[in-house]
Amino acid sequence: MHSESTSFSAESYFATQGPPPNLEHEVSAVRTFVAQQIQQNRNVVLVTSGGTTVPLELNVVRFLDNFSAGTRGATSAEYFLKAGYAVIFMHRQFSLQPFSRHYSHSTNPFLDFLEIDQVDSSDPQISVTADKRAHLLEVLTAYKSVHASGTLLTLTFITVNDYLWLLRAVSQELSVMRRRAMYYLAAAVSDFFLPRQKMSEHKIQSGKGSLHIEMDQVPKILKSMVDEWTHDGFIVSFKLETDPLLLIPKAHAALERYGHQVVIGNDLHRRKFEVVFVSRNPQLNGDASTGSAPSTFVDHWLRIDLIRDPSKEIEEDIISELVRRHEEWVKQK
Amino acid sequence: MHSESTSFSAESYFATQGPPPNLEHEVSAVRTFVAQQIQQNRNVVLVTSGGTTVPLELNVVRFLDNFSAGTRGATSAEYFLKAGYAVIFMHRQFSLQPFSRHYSHSTNPFLDFLEIDQVDSSDPQISVTADKRAHLLEVLTAYKSVHASGTLLTLTFITVNDYLWLLRAVSQELSVMRRRAMYYLAAAVSDFFLPRQKMSEHKIQSGKGSLHIEMDQVPKILKSMVDEWTHDGFIVSFKLETDPLLLIPKAHAALERYGHQVVIGNDLHRRKFEVVFVSRNPQLNGDASTGSAPSTFVDHWLRIDLIRDPSKEIEEDIISELVRRHEEWVKQK
Repeated sequence: MHSESTSFSAESYFATQGPPPNLEHEVSAVRTFVAQQIQQNRNVVLVTSGGTTVPLELNVVRFLDNFSAGTRGATSAEYFLKAGYAVIFMHRQFSLQPFSRHYSHSTNPFLDFLEIDQVDSSDPQISVTADKRAHLLEVLTAYKSVHASGTLLTLTFITVNDYLWLLRAVSQELSVMRRRAMYYLAAAVSDFFLPRQKMSEHKIQSGKGSLHIEMDQVPKILKSMVDEWTHDGFIVSFKLETDPLLLIPKAHAALERYGHQVVIGNDLHRRKFEVVFVSRNPQLNGDASTGSAPSTFVDHWLRIDLIRDPSKEIEEDIISELVRRHEEWVKQK
Repeated sequence: MHSESTSFSAESYFATQGPPPNLEHEVSAVRTFVAQQIQQNRNVVLVTSGGTTVPLELNVVRFLDNFSAGTRGATSAEYFLKAGYAVIFMHRQFSLQPFSRHYSHSTNPFLDFLEIDQVDSSDPQISVTADKRAHLLEVLTAYKSVHASGTLLTLTFITVNDYLWLLRAVSQELSVMRRRAMYYLAAAVSDFFLPRQKMSEHKIQSGKGSLHIEMDQVPKILKSMVDEWTHDGFIVSFKLETDPLLLIPKAHAALERYGHQVVIGNDLHRRKFEVVFVSRNPQLNGDASTGSAPSTFVDHWLRIDLIRDPSKEIEEDIISELVRRHEEWVKQK
């Protein structure tokens, strides 16, 4: 599988890598959804969530993946809904989803809190154990209310190619909302991909020595989002690192390079209780002649204390801060 | 990440790649479980299920994975339990599990069939919608009964390294049951891995051109299972291919090479309704002087008709055939 490496621009990517088969269907669902939210005067946020795959074979058996259960995205979507946003939840198939995320089959299986009541043995009933009822009732009430109000649209991707095509299409549909649209890009997207033209048709056979893979870089589509696909939408990207020394410099570099609104930086091992909001210094937009030069970026740390409050979710504070900033962004126009 | 390729034997693998941290704890759970089943005079089957990952970094952000939701393993485990076996269910974290598999968050979310009864608004109750009650009652009854009888032990792996260490340890514990132990290896195990010594510590940085990966071959541990870890256990392996022409030859080659009992061959696109049981021809063990030479292997095709019976699961027939063969295997001693 050795090959020459090619550099793809967003244009050349979409010109050479085909769209997923169900794209038209999903775009039309998004169009209807956005029209409904405009009628209801609601802000809309696109939440992307979960990891993308890079298949190594056309008949896929093996793939490269990015670590993500989808917790950040699924939890954030719930808080956006609570804050009155309509949510387009674009997630990796089988990653966590808002509401059902509370009942992972591994950590909190729902079959464990259902009981069979044998009062009338010819007509056994199913009930919820007393200790779980209050929490389930809360989750279920929120779930039913969101479904009744039609404020959640769920879209699914698997491969990084699905993701890129879907992201472009949804962004373009959502761009009619201008500043009232937010883009919350929490998915863990591969930086590399294997062009269709280089994939092997069938399962790569073992027994022939070691496996060599060479992958091309995924085009930096944040640049296209800012410049072409969205019109003044409020764009929030994430930067995940494992080396703490790289976090802030890489977040600054991303803002510099793409020109969007916020980078939320997080360290793999601290992400449940600490994130940093990185944005451009608003003072730079005004009068720059006030003595010492202000710094280009503002780093705003957000931390929660999980020892004092173990049930607290940092996404609650992330979303509350973003809603505040988005309101300002909408007003600025 | 270019490097010399090394060939690992099972011995050199375990000598150089460290064990997962919780191995001792899991081995002791297996030991207790096996002792209980011997007391209860039950056969035990080890079911492996789901795909293994190959992390590319020590602080893992990216990994290679094998396509598998764990449907075959989770479904098979249920039918083994129904047939009276005790089951050690060794599966990939977050892959499907027996019983809860019926309620995937994506295809049949359980929140959809729960209702809130507001008869007394100060004390709302949760009930199951009428159309789902009978099926849930059936699943829940089987689930509770298995938990009450202690016939299911669930173990979890993520990486191919977790898998290999766990498989060896469980096989060695289970070997005390000799012929009464079955090994049903349905997990989709990577053929390749990246030795710890070659992994990068932190997230591989993008922006430096294409990604090169070179992986070593995973040692063929079926050979060690047959020769060293199990003592006359009944071993069933799976062979998944996407090229139909390769299926039978590769299944024959696997039996020839490892000397175990059954290879179940399946084509990626036909696996829900067609499999082939490949085993050695029993006539070869007897008198070989009866005229024309019998073939070395017997290929026994098993098919179901999903159009006539869409709720039929092929695992029901697979397990029934295996139980029959395993009974014969136990008698042969």
